[in-house]
Amino acid sequence: MKKRLAIDAMGGDFAPQSVVEAVKMGLEQFPDIQFTLFGDETKIRPYFPEENHNLIIVHTTEKIDSGETDPVRAIRQKKTSSMVMAANAVKDGTVDAMISAGNTGALLASGIFVVGRIKQIERPGLMSTLPTLDGKGFDMLDLGANAENTARHLHNYAVIGSFYAEEVRGIKKPRVGLLNNGSEVGKGAPLQKEAYELIAADKNLNFIGNVEARDLLSGVADVVVADGFTGNAVLKSIEGTAENLMKQLKMSINTGGIRSKIGAVLMKKSLYHLKDALDYEKAGGAVLFGLKAPVVKSHGSSNADAILATIKQTRKMLETEVVTSLKTHYREENQ
Amino acid sequence: MKKRLAIDAMGGDFAPQSVVEAVKMGLEQFPDIQFTLFGDETKIRPYFPEENHNLIIVHTTEKIDSGETDPVRAIRQKKTSSMVMAANAVKDGTVDAMISAGNTGALLASGIFVVGRIKQIERPGLMSTLPTLDGKGFDMLDLGANAENTARHLHNYAVIGSFYAEEVRGIKKPRVGLLNNGSEVGKGAPLQKEAYELIAADKNLNFIGNVEARDLLSGVADVVVADGFTGNAVLKSIEGTAENLMKQLKMSINTGGIRSKIGAVLMKKSLYHLKDALDYEKAGGAVLFGLKAPVVKSHGSSNADAILATIKQTRKMLETEVVTSLKTHYREENQ
Repeated sequence: MKKRLAIDAMGGDFAPQSVVEAVKMGLEQFPDIQFTLFGDETKIRPYFPEENHNLIIVHTTEKIDSGETDPVRAIRQKKTSSMVMAANAVKDGTVDAMISAGNTGALLASGIFVVGRIKQIERPGLMSTLPTLDGKGFDMLDLGANAENTARHLHNYAVIGSFYAEEVRGIKKPRVGLLNNGSEVGKGAPLQKEAYELIAADKNLNFIGNVEARDLLSGVADVVVADGFTGNAVLKSIEGTAENLMKQLKMSINTGGIRSKIGAVLMKKSLYHLKDALDYEKAGGAVLFGLKAPVVKSHGSSNADAILATIKQTRKMLETEVVTSLKTHYREENQ
Repeated sequence: MKKRLAIDAMGGDFAPQSVVEAVKMGLEQFPDIQFTLFGDETKIRPYFPEENHNLIIVHTTEKIDSGETDPVRAIRQKKTSSMVMAANAVKDGTVDAMISAGNTGALLASGIFVVGRIKQIERPGLMSTLPTLDGKGFDMLDLGANAENTARHLHNYAVIGSFYAEEVRGIKKPRVGLLNNGSEVGKGAPLQKEAYELIAADKNLNFIGNVEARDLLSGVADVVVADGFTGNAVLKSIEGTAENLMKQLKMSINTGGIRSKIGAVLMKKSLYHLKDALDYEKAGGAVLFGLKAPVVKSHGSSNADAILATIKQTRKMLETEVVTSLKTHYREENQ
């Protein structure tokens, strides 16, 4: 069966070009995907001079701005925007999943209010696969879909993160860690202490206990669970530090004289390797996880390659039917 | 007047050697400091073959272990340990400040229960000066003295962080930022929203609003305020990312063949520069700030240079009388 993917063609800094180019590549590489592009047809059509039975273009004129600060109001008022139309297609079942590089808040709101959440998951979380030194990576959530979470939400994240790591990334019995301010038992605020108890009591999980932010990139766990406020701060700290160090390195090469510059040329491959290792967008976008269908956010600054990576990732989510597994798990648990 | 500094000679991975060597350098560089070393005299005395009127050694035999997990109990049971003895000397007024590279939890407990806090500051915070791209750095607190904080604590941190940045680091009207999950007004959990109001209403502060973790190392603010749980996670994320990137760089040099290796040799200065920029211990230790006197934590893995940097920093705190300013500020505010 075809995997039917809705794409918000108007979201992201380089839309629609980067999005459309990614879809063009996707059409070639994945004949099992049927793409439905939501966006300005006059801008999109020229990229596809030939008819393709795996491509549908739905013309939209409205667009949710990336600077929009009241996302819930935005999705209510802009019902015919490319993003909301794509979410509606997921809700109606005419497509199986959606991807957008647009306004994060509006995509979260579209996911929760239009696509809808799995009943037992009160607060879907934003999850990304971040890079580790050994190249395996780890899944972390919530990265900021919520400003506040309860211990029950954190237990949900442990469960759904494990499903993702096992089914989509193929890791047997993924090691689940709880982000805390120390690795010993009993650490943290009441939220972490309570979450620890709930996660430890769940025999389906391979819980390894508390983990510290310092050890995340060394691969201390396959799934890392945090409340949305802390998860967001950690993600941005990692990104900011990596960006700054690359800038520092460039600066010290530029001010380091001719020896440094020749050295940098000789080291080009190694430095490129380093930059590459930091590029967590290769692993795809951030999944708003816990919804009835995959809703995946590609970074706002995504180029075509980054969006293609998100397409691959979403395809894998559909292929492995991870969301169906989640639904079955929660349905059975409630019986 | 002499600045009287108590030093826990037995704290840290390389104690007493690294501590004693730092004090030796300190005695030469700062004739205005009188050092009181608390520790095993049989191990310390050999480093000081000559009499020095600026050096007092107080012999202790007990020591609080770095692995001690119940710090409050430890300081109650080990009343004659080098750390608790040093804290008692601060309390009694026989010295003006103390430094330790020992168990962080025990030092926090010694600070709060032995030295004592400034009455109006309910929860002293752990503060460090972290590096920025421009070399100026920023002060951040709480880095984890507390697992939970109220908005009032965060306001305290804004006030005391400003005092430190202005008086000790010489920054006029330091820009205070509140760590949040977005830079717009109204962001965050109830804690951040309430703290925002309190800090914004304080006309003595140069509050620049919410700041994101991504922008900290670019120097977005001179003082960054966070609750202890988040502050701890951010600090450890920055440290972990920096350490990992340096490892990745080394790995890709080692596997990058001869070109890469020659390149690395030529770039040695630049790479050293990068490593140096990351070394926030140059700025000194972490101050447990909000106490009646300076109590400063040097990193457990501190070598003599790192401890000397902490000595310099503590000397500056005494010279500028920043703690006295804080006491006066809070006394006047309460009149």
